[in-house]
Amino acid sequence: MVLSSSIGYAQPDRKALEQAYIGQIVKDLPTPACILNRTKVKDNCDAMLSNAESLGVGFRAHIKTHKTLEGVRLQLGSSNHGKIIVSTLMEAYSCLPLVEEGLVHDILYGLPVAPSKIPELAELATMMPYLRLMMDSEAQLDALIAHSRARPDTKKWSVFVKVDCGTHRAGLPTNSSALQSLISYLLAPEVSQFVDIYGFYCHAGHSYHDTSTGSAKETLFAEITSADAAAKYALSVLKSEDTSRFVISVGATPTAHASHAVKKAELPAVSGALELHAGCYGFCDLQQYATNLIEFEDISIRVLAEVVSQYDERDEMLINAGCIALSRETGPIPGYGNVCGSATGWTVGRISQEHGILTRCDKSATMTPVGQKVLIVPQHACITGASYEWYYIVEESGLNAKVVDVWIRFNGW
Amino acid sequence: MVLSSSIGYAQPDRKALEQAYIGQIVKDLPTPACILNRTKVKDNCDAMLSNAESLGVGFRAHIKTHKTLEGVRLQLGSSNHGKIIVSTLMEAYSCLPLVEEGLVHDILYGLPVAPSKIPELAELATMMPYLRLMMDSEAQLDALIAHSRARPDTKKWSVFVKVDCGTHRAGLPTNSSALQSLISYLLAPEVSQFVDIYGFYCHAGHSYHDTSTGSAKETLFAEITSADAAAKYALSVLKSEDTSRFVISVGATPTAHASHAVKKAELPAVSGALELHAGCYGFCDLQQYATNLIEFEDISIRVLAEVVSQYDERDEMLINAGCIALSRETGPIPGYGNVCGSATGWTVGRISQEHGILTRCDKSATMTPVGQKVLIVPQHACITGASYEWYYIVEESGLNAKVVDVWIRFNGW
Repeated sequence: MVLSSSIGYAQPDRKALEQAYIGQIVKDLPTPACILNRTKVKDNCDAMLSNAESLGVGFRAHIKTHKTLEGVRLQLGSSNHGKIIVSTLMEAYSCLPLVEEGLVHDILYGLPVAPSKIPELAELATMMPYLRLMMDSEAQLDALIAHSRARPDTKKWSVFVKVDCGTHRAGLPTNSSALQSLISYLLAPEVSQFVDIYGFYCHAGHSYHDTSTGSAKETLFAEITSADAAAKYALSVLKSEDTSRFVISVGATPTAHASHAVKKAELPAVSGALELHAGCYGFCDLQQYATNLIEFEDISIRVLAEVVSQYDERDEMLINAGCIALSRETGPIPGYGNVCGSATGWTVGRISQEHGILTRCDKSATMTPVGQKVLIVPQHACITGASYEWYYIVEESGLNAKVVDVWIRFNGW
Repeated sequence: MVLSSSIGYAQPDRKALEQAYIGQIVKDLPTPACILNRTKVKDNCDAMLSNAESLGVGFRAHIKTHKTLEGVRLQLGSSNHGKIIVSTLMEAYSCLPLVEEGLVHDILYGLPVAPSKIPELAELATMMPYLRLMMDSEAQLDALIAHSRARPDTKKWSVFVKVDCGTHRAGLPTNSSALQSLISYLLAPEVSQFVDIYGFYCHAGHSYHDTSTGSAKETLFAEITSADAAAKYALSVLKSEDTSRFVISVGATPTAHASHAVKKAELPAVSGALELHAGCYGFCDLQQYATNLIEFEDISIRVLAEVVSQYDERDEMLINAGCIALSRETGPIPGYGNVCGSATGWTVGRISQEHGILTRCDKSATMTPVGQKVLIVPQHACITGASYEWYYIVEESGLNAKVVDVWIRFNGW
């Protein structure tokens, strides 16, 4: 079949971009633009790999924040983990060159399976050693089984069961009868001939509200305990004590950051192989900064905009970046983005489609002249990045950094 | 020079899209998808042209909501107005074929001029009969003049002065000394040799809060009075009474909708040629519906998503459309989008990157089975549309409508 991700979507012209922009200085780029400090991305990625290594656990990189081949390489480093999570079929499809290369061998499609996507997922599964799916409903399983029965050449499905440890997005609550019923159904012979449980998965999205290492560490332990309870239940159904049978995959960027403060001996004993996962940590943003788990200097993403007007009567400035360029994401830190560097003292207080209004957050700050560029740290890197077709890559901070590369994103679904 | 809009950006493959999707039924399309009912778009566009005609005023179509060639054609209809507004240089650049064809002859770049964009704007100005710029600061003018002095072949600039009638986004307040000073500076010989005032422009963005035809009509009259005050001041500086000298351009979608209820004789007498402008009216959305100026049936845009899970314990459903597919825009109607049709009674209550949670807004509504598609009316069409590279075009409503065309958007800046 033809994968829908391969229909119609076009890739930006990398050669034209490289020729036009490599060697340019950030402040001379067309605005709005999305700028990434590769040195910081690499440091953030290495730090996370080192967390996993210190704890002796596996690592699975969520690629939805950056959606680039170069970003996957930095996330995996020299670790040979080879395991990633994607949020769209387009991301999985676009990573096929890395699968072919051997860098990636295990892809988890992280959204609970939409029945209509099953034929494409079956096709993608044949293109890599391991494609994992996310399960949280018997209806999804029924659709998988129906496909496998109709197409006996279908590869056996490998799935994570999603456990809701408090975010109330996807997943079933720990120890709930719904979760136990799903697990029992998965292990029943009429299902298990087509579908294999690979592991149990928790994502504490609510950890974005944590504001200290201590509380994020507690949330990390809650993720582990929640996923482990599901694994324990599955082992009890199987009447097995094989703690290598399942993978227990946990993490959200704040809890994954907090893993840095966990000693191996502190880790709860679990009935499976522990695996850490996270995505936003490579870029970070104001939401991550608000958790107090990173330094402001760790944030690697900026939106470049230009001051286009000043309004003395209302003490505001206009920039040419609005909610398309920045996204309408908010967080504990007020505004839609913080202005860095010499213009510090201003925040993006209001936005419409292409207009941003800088409002004052420091009485002593002066206005930035019309025509000067400003760098803005966004609230939520995953959503802000989605408006851009490519990132301009630099290796240092500020308006005078030189562009050293261009990374092209896999947008679409 | 090379226009930055022409560097790197790639267009989706129209032929591949047409071949794959024309003739398909909406419910069989890959999700998330953005669906447009062309019949409704055309009706909405014709109604607005008819408003302008009844009032005997000009009309200028803002194209930022749809960013497609086909959309511009429907907005201009058979009117021969030929005047559009763009929010990005990419939109202006992408409309050059319509300029060549003679359908468009006058483009207003609607964001106050960023000094760094001036060389490209000068280049674009040579490619069409009239390129208008938006002005609200003497610093912008100084940058224009500096360019014209350095490049004596630069075409004389034609500008709208932006008047702030209460939105406090761009523009200077009516009758403020800042506005009068800008107008006087524009009319001074050292400036007017390079820059010509074409007109005065008001956009009552705050009219999105109006909730009746009566109040939106008052806001429309306030737009007219505000822009007219600026025109009157300019004529007084010129010691002229020539009411054909300037254009007075007013409108935001709610005030433009309210123009339907205005009789020609009710229009305030103004010192210039009146022109109506608007953008979102072709699509409409929940924000426009909340103004009570349109019917729900007038909304022509839908996001197609699939129900991927159900959570009985919390009485919620999961869809595969999150804040990238829907946008995190809100309005007086709760949620991030209203589910239409047989699934009515549910709203998109929470969103993250690719996950949407349907929450109940009607006790008697039943759950939609996993695997069924739903159509969602977004809060703000301009921002939701920006996540898609193309629209699927239908001519009727619902999940069984047939795709008759594909429209490709001009994203980027």
